[in-house]
Amino acid sequence: MEILKVSSKSNPNSVAGAIAGSIKEQDKVELQAIGAGALNQAIKGIAIARGFLAPSGVDLVCVPAFTEVDVEGNDRTGIKLIVKGE
Amino acid sequence: MEILKVSSKSNPNSVAGAIAGSIKEQDKVELQAIGAGALNQAIKGIAIARGFLAPSGVDLVCVPAFTEVDVEGNDRTGIKLIVKGE
Repeated sequence: MEILKVSSKSNPNSVAGAIAGSIKEQDKVELQAIGAGALNQAIKGIAIARGFLAPSGVDLVCVPAFTEVDVEGNDRTGIKLIVKGE
Repeated sequence: MEILKVSSKSNPNSVAGAIAGSIKEQDKVELQAIGAGALNQAIKGIAIARGFLAPSGVDLVCVPAFTEVDVEGNDRTGIKLIVKGE
């Protein structure tokens, strides 16, 4: 599964475009976000991507979970969001 | 559908408990969050609630969308998360 890393500086529209592209190819994509700002952009991206995909009859849902991410040699707890087209 | 308002000061474990309680009764619950900090607590709550409900065979998914919320007479854009047990 493709992994998209989202930061607090990511543009939600760009995140949405990347999600829509991945979903069309693979039906599933994982977003990774560390920190509240990054998670905020990731969730906005999913909400916008729903609008991109709804006309094709794809209903996006997401499953949030905790994940350990290595950041410059340190383990940090982030959130992963598995996004699935139904 | 029940609406749970989550703030940046909400405890994710308490949010998770409220989600699990609502899902057992109604299969569906809406979380509302305004701002990145509140959304962060809401998503953590969903991730934790998945662990509460998984032993009963319930797989939680969430659908994020934008929503207008009235805060002291002003319209603010927040995020609503429809949480469903599958």
